[in-house]
Amino acid sequence: MKKVGIALLGLGTVGGGTYRILEKNHEMIKKSEGIDLEVRCVLEKNLDRCRELGVDESIVSTDIDRVVNDPEIKIVAEFFGGIEPARSFLIKCLLAGKSIVTANKEMFAKHWHELEEAARKGKAGLYFEASCVGGVPIIRTLTESMQGNNIQSIKGIINGTTNYILSKMSDTGADYAETLKEAQDLGYAEFNPSADVDGFDATYKLSILSSLAFRKKVPLDIIYREGISKVTAEDINYGKEFGLTLKLLGIAKQHEDGRIEARVHPVFIPNDEPLATVKGSFNAVHIVGDAVGDIMLYGRGAGDLPTGSAIVSDIVYAAGQKSHKLSCFKNNGLHIPNREFVRDFESEYYIRMTVKEEAGVLSDVTGVFGRSNVSLRSVIQKGDVDNNGNVTVIFETHVTTESSMEKALKKIAKLDCVLEVNSIIRIEK
Amino acid sequence: MKKVGIALLGLGTVGGGTYRILEKNHEMIKKSEGIDLEVRCVLEKNLDRCRELGVDESIVSTDIDRVVNDPEIKIVAEFFGGIEPARSFLIKCLLAGKSIVTANKEMFAKHWHELEEAARKGKAGLYFEASCVGGVPIIRTLTESMQGNNIQSIKGIINGTTNYILSKMSDTGADYAETLKEAQDLGYAEFNPSADVDGFDATYKLSILSSLAFRKKVPLDIIYREGISKVTAEDINYGKEFGLTLKLLGIAKQHEDGRIEARVHPVFIPNDEPLATVKGSFNAVHIVGDAVGDIMLYGRGAGDLPTGSAIVSDIVYAAGQKSHKLSCFKNNGLHIPNREFVRDFESEYYIRMTVKEEAGVLSDVTGVFGRSNVSLRSVIQKGDVDNNGNVTVIFETHVTTESSMEKALKKIAKLDCVLEVNSIIRIEK
Repeated sequence: MKKVGIALLGLGTVGGGTYRILEKNHEMIKKSEGIDLEVRCVLEKNLDRCRELGVDESIVSTDIDRVVNDPEIKIVAEFFGGIEPARSFLIKCLLAGKSIVTANKEMFAKHWHELEEAARKGKAGLYFEASCVGGVPIIRTLTESMQGNNIQSIKGIINGTTNYILSKMSDTGADYAETLKEAQDLGYAEFNPSADVDGFDATYKLSILSSLAFRKKVPLDIIYREGISKVTAEDINYGKEFGLTLKLLGIAKQHEDGRIEARVHPVFIPNDEPLATVKGSFNAVHIVGDAVGDIMLYGRGAGDLPTGSAIVSDIVYAAGQKSHKLSCFKNNGLHIPNREFVRDFESEYYIRMTVKEEAGVLSDVTGVFGRSNVSLRSVIQKGDVDNNGNVTVIFETHVTTESSMEKALKKIAKLDCVLEVNSIIRIEK
Repeated sequence: MKKVGIALLGLGTVGGGTYRILEKNHEMIKKSEGIDLEVRCVLEKNLDRCRELGVDESIVSTDIDRVVNDPEIKIVAEFFGGIEPARSFLIKCLLAGKSIVTANKEMFAKHWHELEEAARKGKAGLYFEASCVGGVPIIRTLTESMQGNNIQSIKGIINGTTNYILSKMSDTGADYAETLKEAQDLGYAEFNPSADVDGFDATYKLSILSSLAFRKKVPLDIIYREGISKVTAEDINYGKEFGLTLKLLGIAKQHEDGRIEARVHPVFIPNDEPLATVKGSFNAVHIVGDAVGDIMLYGRGAGDLPTGSAIVSDIVYAAGQKSHKLSCFKNNGLHIPNREFVRDFESEYYIRMTVKEEAGVLSDVTGVFGRSNVSLRSVIQKGDVDNNGNVTVIFETHVTTESSMEKALKKIAKLDCVLEVNSIIRIEK
């Protein structure tokens, strides 16, 4: 029986979940995988937490060198989160020949090239299934199941907090602030929710997933990012009338010429798309490959045991490898020429405006759209004229570029008859 | 650059799709995987087909020994289907140390232990991602992504033909015979449709998937099997009224005591279950693990390129392994004691009967159910009394065992007031 020593850096939510799975299913893993996983060191300051989980105090430490210097430790699982000290610790471990397993998407999205370099030098492996979409095997699918595919697109609900908030807003009709507060009270959103609601977390994941899908590093700074804090109950309801569901999606596409576009923003999708049916804190990723066609993976994107499941799967996987496969990216994510990416991407749009109810208004607005090369699919007046003589109008456009839309909206905002452009939401079909 | 020789046994639909992918994406695979895949031999009698695909005639043969005796061929992909000559050829290849890749679910479900034995002797690998659910990475998910999970259940739409027929019947209201005929004309069903519509194909796949999930061989003969040929448009429509969708599912569960139940049959599921939204020829598998919770994988379950995608992924995967992992089943699927399996499984039921419209009928029927320990959720009379004074009644039960239901129905069929028990369909929630 192959015995493999492990270190766990941190015993927070996911670290604790991982420890629990390793304890509970230790014998099963031994029998079915032929590997005896032994936790030899846990780096954790909080001794109460260690006791709560039943960790033997003799293996608890706060000194990374105890991990680095133990030759029996072959795999290091990191649960600190954030950049430091995770980054320095892991580079030390990799250089010492220890493979790392992590859920740390931010560090991976920002420092992948450094970690790879250290892994190459140390002949160690880098495993990060848990960094994206919890226990759903999206990384392994991209790296070990789609090798024969030229991947065309990847679209996903890759942040559970925002999906919970948007699903709830849609179900209850409540507004954003109220729903966020409720999500915070229930523990679905952080006290400081910015990483989730402003789209940072989804951007980290999209950078990782699209880099693997397109086999070159897609750096964070080329990903367009827009969060959900401006989403209104009103637009969600109007969307319903049009058969559309609002989701925060990560979208990445490879164009025919090899250029890549990547973006994270709220977007309306048709109700009958599989992604539209993904509710609450569930996540899902839809991939299109030239051979396999459409596939979708669905599951819990967070939580101690689901994410711990991905960590344990990486540990077992890493333990079974005789040598470790690293990425074959054509770039390292640094100094990438702009021409490799599409920033002026195309989309359909939903636009809600408040305009004066008077003759010629629609003709003025639609005229500007036309002259800016934005073709309209529909124009619908919603509700009655308000006390000030104003009315809500919703425009749906055909596919147009970001730049054409921006140009049109700048001009429209200057029209006397337009009081406000209330909402601009992309539609993805 | 590592060069790996391949042989393709057969160039039918999936063999041809595989060849196309290997040709089209050869350079991409070389760059991103660092492996140069070379097709060195194709076993195919039909030379027209070889020409159509642009296969160089110098590598076409009909002699398996050319494959066995070529030391450069490391991986053999089989597309013959059926048991022989696939089985004998593959055993020869395995004993010669060549790994095999196959989509042949029937052979795998029936002869897995023999293939494993040969693979062990030859130190070769067995790869069969393509045998279940086409390009959807369900095998890799079970073997390489859920190692930390005690899997509780696996439920899936694992046959595209029957899902196409049932989806179509639901959409159009047409009956089974007419819809099958249409599916045959469109190429979605075979001229002899029995393997699909009688559930054999799904049973092969469920045997493979549940064996991997529960880490012991689940042989074909313990899987309960019932096809879709008795399904009526009437029941599909009544199901709709109750918020239920009819699907042919493969269901396998591990009970608390370790016993396993496995079955393939038509079943009503609630409309809002993710599996209910899987339409047409798409497939999906829903797995529940003790760590990961619910996950679902979705995609095309058949077709030249989707299944070819799985074959190519297995080829690349096999080519990258220094040694091959085989199953660690606790049994070989032979001589398994009955006590390891649950045959008298539990389910809810939908039952449609034609009864005489007269006083006391419902009391007679419900009385028999009650005395047989079958508890009813609802009893609803449907439509008007017909010319013969008969009426349709639909019963929905709570969870009960197969044996209780059988006992009850035997007695009910003998009641004078019951003209016919028209349909018995399980409900899975």
